[in-house]
Amino acid sequence: MQALQLTGTGLRYTTDYPQPQCLPGDALIRVRVAGICSTDLEIVKGYAGFTGVLGHEFVGEVVEANDATWLGKRVVGTINISAECNGTCGRRCPEHCPDRTVLGIIGKDGVFADFVTLPLANLLPVPDTIPDEVAVFTEPLAAAIRITEQVPIAQKIPVAVVGPGRLGMLVAQVLQQAGADVTVIGRRAVSLELAAQLGMKIGFADDFAGETFALAVEATGNAAGLAQTLRLVVPQGTVVLKSTYAANPTVDLTPVVVNELNIIGSRCGPFEPALDLLASGKVVTEPFIEGRYALADGIAAFAHAAQPGVRKILLYPDLH
Amino acid sequence: MQALQLTGTGLRYTTDYPQPQCLPGDALIRVRVAGICSTDLEIVKGYAGFTGVLGHEFVGEVVEANDATWLGKRVVGTINISAECNGTCGRRCPEHCPDRTVLGIIGKDGVFADFVTLPLANLLPVPDTIPDEVAVFTEPLAAAIRITEQVPIAQKIPVAVVGPGRLGMLVAQVLQQAGADVTVIGRRAVSLELAAQLGMKIGFADDFAGETFALAVEATGNAAGLAQTLRLVVPQGTVVLKSTYAANPTVDLTPVVVNELNIIGSRCGPFEPALDLLASGKVVTEPFIEGRYALADGIAAFAHAAQPGVRKILLYPDLH
Repeated sequence: MQALQLTGTGLRYTTDYPQPQCLPGDALIRVRVAGICSTDLEIVKGYAGFTGVLGHEFVGEVVEANDATWLGKRVVGTINISAECNGTCGRRCPEHCPDRTVLGIIGKDGVFADFVTLPLANLLPVPDTIPDEVAVFTEPLAAAIRITEQVPIAQKIPVAVVGPGRLGMLVAQVLQQAGADVTVIGRRAVSLELAAQLGMKIGFADDFAGETFALAVEATGNAAGLAQTLRLVVPQGTVVLKSTYAANPTVDLTPVVVNELNIIGSRCGPFEPALDLLASGKVVTEPFIEGRYALADGIAAFAHAAQPGVRKILLYPDLH
Repeated sequence: MQALQLTGTGLRYTTDYPQPQCLPGDALIRVRVAGICSTDLEIVKGYAGFTGVLGHEFVGEVVEANDATWLGKRVVGTINISAECNGTCGRRCPEHCPDRTVLGIIGKDGVFADFVTLPLANLLPVPDTIPDEVAVFTEPLAAAIRITEQVPIAQKIPVAVVGPGRLGMLVAQVLQQAGADVTVIGRRAVSLELAAQLGMKIGFADDFAGETFALAVEATGNAAGLAQTLRLVVPQGTVVLKSTYAANPTVDLTPVVVNELNIIGSRCGPFEPALDLLASGKVVTEPFIEGRYALADGIAAFAHAAQPGVRKILLYPDLH
């Protein structure tokens, strides 16, 4: 089958990758559309030491499964897999399972391919009202919603989202929906246009003398953005780290100690409310789509996705 | 009077520093003994941009005050001063007051001198049962106790204290008293002897495969210690940052995001429970005293305190 395969020497497109076997309890899914995530770009640079088929954001159609009720269903799927879990370790399961695999990230081939397998327990049917190109945002939107599981969002709480990229703007919309008073902070006026259109406050980091926001979300993935975020928060305020960092950031942690900040790392989130939010139409995703590529043009798609400020690049196995 | 004065060109000992004026509401305090803190060492390197008389850990005797009941009292004093506070800003007061001064750190001459002034509201009498050389640990012990105000300490919770220095060993004792199962982690066997004597578990960072502790306290103040600490904590566990960092650390923040860690900055703490704990004799401080110097030999005292692994250096204005 077609696949974008990360090897020890880099990313390559192949048409002869072995189709994954559908084991009992799994579904074999034909990928309809997949999204390139910042994490994918970091993995290509070497983060996580992964080799295999990349990709974890997708919408697909079940073509094989022991449970026939799933056949033909359009699905999205959660990405953490804990095969042997007995539920006794006390960790958030499967996201923090020490033995987990993670779709296209740790020990499990991903979705930049014609087919992928996932346990049926990881699948959620996509309501007919949600088109593929909206449903493909379920995974990153769930990651944005994760913040609201970790931090209570008081009504009108002043929140800064630093980094108006793909993930940042999903986070901003989720927090706005939750009742927060959202300011999106970027480095260029053009990157803030969507936030302004969505009725959010916008600004450059230097516009704020500091210590302004009760909560700030770091969604830039770079050291400068992190340093800005730490300075924007009031004493005893909260900073959510939503990005992984390819390069280890060098950061002045003095504000963390002196202002007794609370930094919370945030990763995968719940799919059900993400699908509900997409079905409601209250979160826009269309402006994030910047390019559509055939999977066969995946190398070019990755080069496009890696350019600064580029939003979501989608991959289509069936596009020729 | 005598003072250790930090100027733009460095630290100097002088005998002609002007004695501070005792304003209404203040006490004039004759310093009996003062302690050199890691923060003092950082300030000398340029952290906080302070100039004036250094020092914030002390025991003294009130020699002048409007309220005569304080005269002759042996006292310790909290270090944050919020002169004009109207209590409406909602911040922890005075520790996070944007207009605060901080004894020997921000805009207020400190205790490495014959005399110091502090508002009476900042003073606590020292019970007669607590000798000067124990009471001088009130401020750092309060900073250690601060952790228990910020993080619930469940009985037998596995806690790592990384960095068996002065502050680390106070933190370890406070957490042990609070019921935690404390492991002290250091780089050299000799630095862990006290922890072993106090019945704590000890180890080197490399002894742990990682993700072992529900709570870890970073008390090394260096990037390597911070990186170790982040790796030692279980998913969704808590890391307390207790040190300020003179050099901005370069740190792999991946564990923070992937493991959804909670990092909490921690600064000044409550003096009353610190005095109670010192009076109870349940916290040892004597092993931390590594040198006693006349204030006149303060430059040599600072050089001694700055050597790696050195514990508390005390200064005595009256020693000649």
